[in-house]
Amino acid sequence: MEQDDIVKQLKMRHSAAHVMAEAVQCIFTDVKFGIGPPIDNGFYYDFELPRSLTPEDLPVIEEKMRELIKQNAPFVKKDISKEEARSIFNDQPYKLELIDDLPDDTVTIYTQGSFTDLCRGPHLESTGSIQAFKLTHIAGAYWRGDEKRIMLQRIYALAFTSQTELQNCIDLQIEAAERDHKKLGKELDLFSIHEEVGPGLICWHPKGAMVRQVIEDFWRKEHSKRDYNVVYTPHIAKIDLWKTSGHWDFYHDYLYPPMDMEGQQYLLKPMNCLSHIMIYKSHLRSYRDLPIRYAELGTVYRYERAGVLYGMARVRGFTQDDAHIFCRNDQIEDEVKGVVELAQFMMENFGFQDYELMLSTRPDKYAGTLQMWEQATTALKNVIEALELPYKIDEGEGVFYGPKIDIKLRDALGHAWQGPTIQVDFNLPERFNVCYIGNDGVEHNVTMIHRTVLGSMERFFACLIEHYKGAFPVWLAPVQAIIIPIADRHLEYAKQIEDNLKNEGFRVQTDKRTERMNLKIREAQLEKIPFMLIVGNNEMASATASVRLRSGEDLGEQTIAQITTKLKAAIKTKS
Amino acid sequence: MEQDDIVKQLKMRHSAAHVMAEAVQCIFTDVKFGIGPPIDNGFYYDFELPRSLTPEDLPVIEEKMRELIKQNAPFVKKDISKEEARSIFNDQPYKLELIDDLPDDTVTIYTQGSFTDLCRGPHLESTGSIQAFKLTHIAGAYWRGDEKRIMLQRIYALAFTSQTELQNCIDLQIEAAERDHKKLGKELDLFSIHEEVGPGLICWHPKGAMVRQVIEDFWRKEHSKRDYNVVYTPHIAKIDLWKTSGHWDFYHDYLYPPMDMEGQQYLLKPMNCLSHIMIYKSHLRSYRDLPIRYAELGTVYRYERAGVLYGMARVRGFTQDDAHIFCRNDQIEDEVKGVVELAQFMMENFGFQDYELMLSTRPDKYAGTLQMWEQATTALKNVIEALELPYKIDEGEGVFYGPKIDIKLRDALGHAWQGPTIQVDFNLPERFNVCYIGNDGVEHNVTMIHRTVLGSMERFFACLIEHYKGAFPVWLAPVQAIIIPIADRHLEYAKQIEDNLKNEGFRVQTDKRTERMNLKIREAQLEKIPFMLIVGNNEMASATASVRLRSGEDLGEQTIAQITTKLKAAIKTKS
Repeated sequence: MEQDDIVKQLKMRHSAAHVMAEAVQCIFTDVKFGIGPPIDNGFYYDFELPRSLTPEDLPVIEEKMRELIKQNAPFVKKDISKEEARSIFNDQPYKLELIDDLPDDTVTIYTQGSFTDLCRGPHLESTGSIQAFKLTHIAGAYWRGDEKRIMLQRIYALAFTSQTELQNCIDLQIEAAERDHKKLGKELDLFSIHEEVGPGLICWHPKGAMVRQVIEDFWRKEHSKRDYNVVYTPHIAKIDLWKTSGHWDFYHDYLYPPMDMEGQQYLLKPMNCLSHIMIYKSHLRSYRDLPIRYAELGTVYRYERAGVLYGMARVRGFTQDDAHIFCRNDQIEDEVKGVVELAQFMMENFGFQDYELMLSTRPDKYAGTLQMWEQATTALKNVIEALELPYKIDEGEGVFYGPKIDIKLRDALGHAWQGPTIQVDFNLPERFNVCYIGNDGVEHNVTMIHRTVLGSMERFFACLIEHYKGAFPVWLAPVQAIIIPIADRHLEYAKQIEDNLKNEGFRVQTDKRTERMNLKIREAQLEKIPFMLIVGNNEMASATASVRLRSGEDLGEQTIAQITTKLKAAIKTKS
Repeated sequence: MEQDDIVKQLKMRHSAAHVMAEAVQCIFTDVKFGIGPPIDNGFYYDFELPRSLTPEDLPVIEEKMRELIKQNAPFVKKDISKEEARSIFNDQPYKLELIDDLPDDTVTIYTQGSFTDLCRGPHLESTGSIQAFKLTHIAGAYWRGDEKRIMLQRIYALAFTSQTELQNCIDLQIEAAERDHKKLGKELDLFSIHEEVGPGLICWHPKGAMVRQVIEDFWRKEHSKRDYNVVYTPHIAKIDLWKTSGHWDFYHDYLYPPMDMEGQQYLLKPMNCLSHIMIYKSHLRSYRDLPIRYAELGTVYRYERAGVLYGMARVRGFTQDDAHIFCRNDQIEDEVKGVVELAQFMMENFGFQDYELMLSTRPDKYAGTLQMWEQATTALKNVIEALELPYKIDEGEGVFYGPKIDIKLRDALGHAWQGPTIQVDFNLPERFNVCYIGNDGVEHNVTMIHRTVLGSMERFFACLIEHYKGAFPVWLAPVQAIIIPIADRHLEYAKQIEDNLKNEGFRVQTDKRTERMNLKIREAQLEKIPFMLIVGNNEMASATASVRLRSGEDLGEQTIAQITTKLKAAIKTKS
């Protein structure tokens, strides 16, 4: 979008917010106004009202807004003293608070029709230029985002400069709601979160766990091919480890509190690196032994405020597909290249074509030497450029211990998800004296690389659910084929096919219920099972099954050998 | 052994303990005596001595004992009053304490040669009948096992009625020491325990983790075949779950302390059952849905005193190969049969031929009704008897919530290991209202079966290490074949073979060092790698490798196809 168009859109959204406030003022008495900024796709306004809003209020407010827009009242700007502003807003406590906080003696107000707001602007000329908009929903919002202050009522709206754009956005939101992993997770019986267990803690149900197992098996196989060694380490460790590492000082607000035992404090691990360091240090290592790559599907726990938790996408307990590479400085580039290529390979296999890299460089406060940073940052840059990948540089935004690459995946709807990360670390090797004996016979600190190529199993699974809208490709599908006998007399034949396909290693089940075939098909479709194999008299006679895909496509009668071939092909191509 | 022989052996061991005490009295001045009972394979005696004992003291004491035995002094028994006893032992504070604690007014003492001990007996006629013995080691032992009291010095000894038995026992102990999983775990680089992480917390190194992965893959495959559903659940949950279940009340001494967060207390889970209940309860279940079997390789944490921890055999953090079966009462027998058969299958695949079952029945205090207990206990008994398995009944020793079967494995040395367990549970379904809708349309409580078929990954792995003496069968071996190039000019050919075998899915590595071939072979043998493939000029010319097994057997030159066949056969037969 052109810069001009962006400004125009912002003005329009901001102006529409004022019109919504005016409409609310017309409908309710004794309204206290909070703030009403433009946001992505629209705007909102916060109100204190004499009663709770209901969804039924929205069309009424919308109607009033259209009336006000038709009147085409001009937006009139006025610079006034704080004194004057205080008297105008003398019955508006939130505005008075805002006035107090403004730095200058002069403040700006905008008036349209019967409504005046404290506002820096800019606005449209008049209300008549407000175009396509729609009030969408109501939410509670603490005044100034502070949980200790009053909760106001917020009305959200979409607003665009054309009806087409608005409709596209509405369609996209409907589509996003249908893809929402929380909704599909429940419908497809993939996972649950229980108040009794705790917020942000995931129970993976059989079908979700099956997808996770397939991902983990694939992950392990691909890591083993690339000479990673899988390890397992405990979920707790003495707190001193985290004090030595610096994590306790830096991050203790994000850790679960320590557990006292026999005069020692233990912490639930927030990351896997320290126990990997312990394994590395259990032997003397030579320059010839490097690189050493320890991989772990390690479950870690971090505190996040309950308010920011979201399904599997933002949780308190998650399994990182973690690895730590212990290498020499001169190996950084090769190792990072290996990781980026592995990350690409993974993303492509899981159907993500669209991703972008962010390279974060040295912040003001940093561990290691300038030379180390330069060498590592150059190595990262070289890798990205050699692979001709699109990337941005986030200057000075690296973590203090080394430069990093973050990769964001775009799902089928274009939403960005935090994916793989690759972080060079000069800090831990120094703090824990993680060394190798060089070919000069002298001890040197290793360089550590922290990396994930999926991120976490939870977030990655949430992303996969939304990306595929729950219709997992055959290789990932928890149930790859369902056999639907038309009547009970076909159960035995169904069982034969089931055994046959199970022996071939496919994940198959039979719908043995005495329901009508059409209902069974409809339900299998809702479960998004890729292959439906319908068996009745004809199929029994010809030793076949009628194959229907979840897309609705009808492949007609197929022999078991043909079905096997089709399933195998679909699995192999990961389609 | 006959009852008479057992009594004779006990007398002999007990008498030898007195002779050892006499010998110590002859060598040291100012000895304070603790107690000196017979034990399995021998005896010990606890002393307070003016200095610490060293291993060099043992032959000296042994020599003195032989001298005293040669004197063939009679053991003279005397019943005396406590009064008299107190005057005899007036410089022996530990004996005085024992005298105070004896209930009767009359106590018994035994004298041989210069040594008199407070002792109920019985003893041999005279010291001359003491036969084969050997002092083995020194250990610290708290007086009366109380950590708050003085630590005495304990001398352990073996003692038998024949030299052959003694030698057999010594040989067995040497063999056991060589098989010790702590020793082999370090030598074979399988795992480590770090003071910095905490006692009883295991770091699985790459080679140990590889064996674990193979076991887990096999376990998952076999469970999936038997219609178990794998799930994943968090390692923490709110404490209220454990209060509802009763675990907090009954077992809180064995739990890690709670973590406070947002006014809630969270516990590190000591078992997986409660989150499986949460998953079960996330849907309404019908009688037709049962049985439902949730399996999880779930890592749990329990507190054990530091003193009882032992390598991987007794730990604080362990991964149970857990499952919970939710079934109707009338399904208990079928389900238990399935579990016992799966346990048998597992044990046989891991090379355990020898195991025994213990059936524990209703204790005085119990959950559920008498009828439920009767039905379930009969079901367990029916299963064991139908499978014609050897078993014992531990009357009244069931846990309060239901009858159970424990299975003990015997390793190659005859040591017993706690293996699979199967516990029926009438308690949790009631406490958590875990129900199904019966065909009568009414809610009924399910019966839960808790079960493991290996026990825990840690203890089972410890047992496997000792059972196989670290020489894992090919299917489990972390490295299945090592390629040993004779000189650097054979490296490329070695690489070809490595790639070839890796493509076939074997775990192969190449010893690329410029060391002598014999050293490489010796080291591969110490690492207990099943197949050594030696390649030099001849092998390159004939496109073969010279195959040597870790047993030392030389199979001569073999083509890669022949080697592949041999490896596959060994993996298939699990030998």
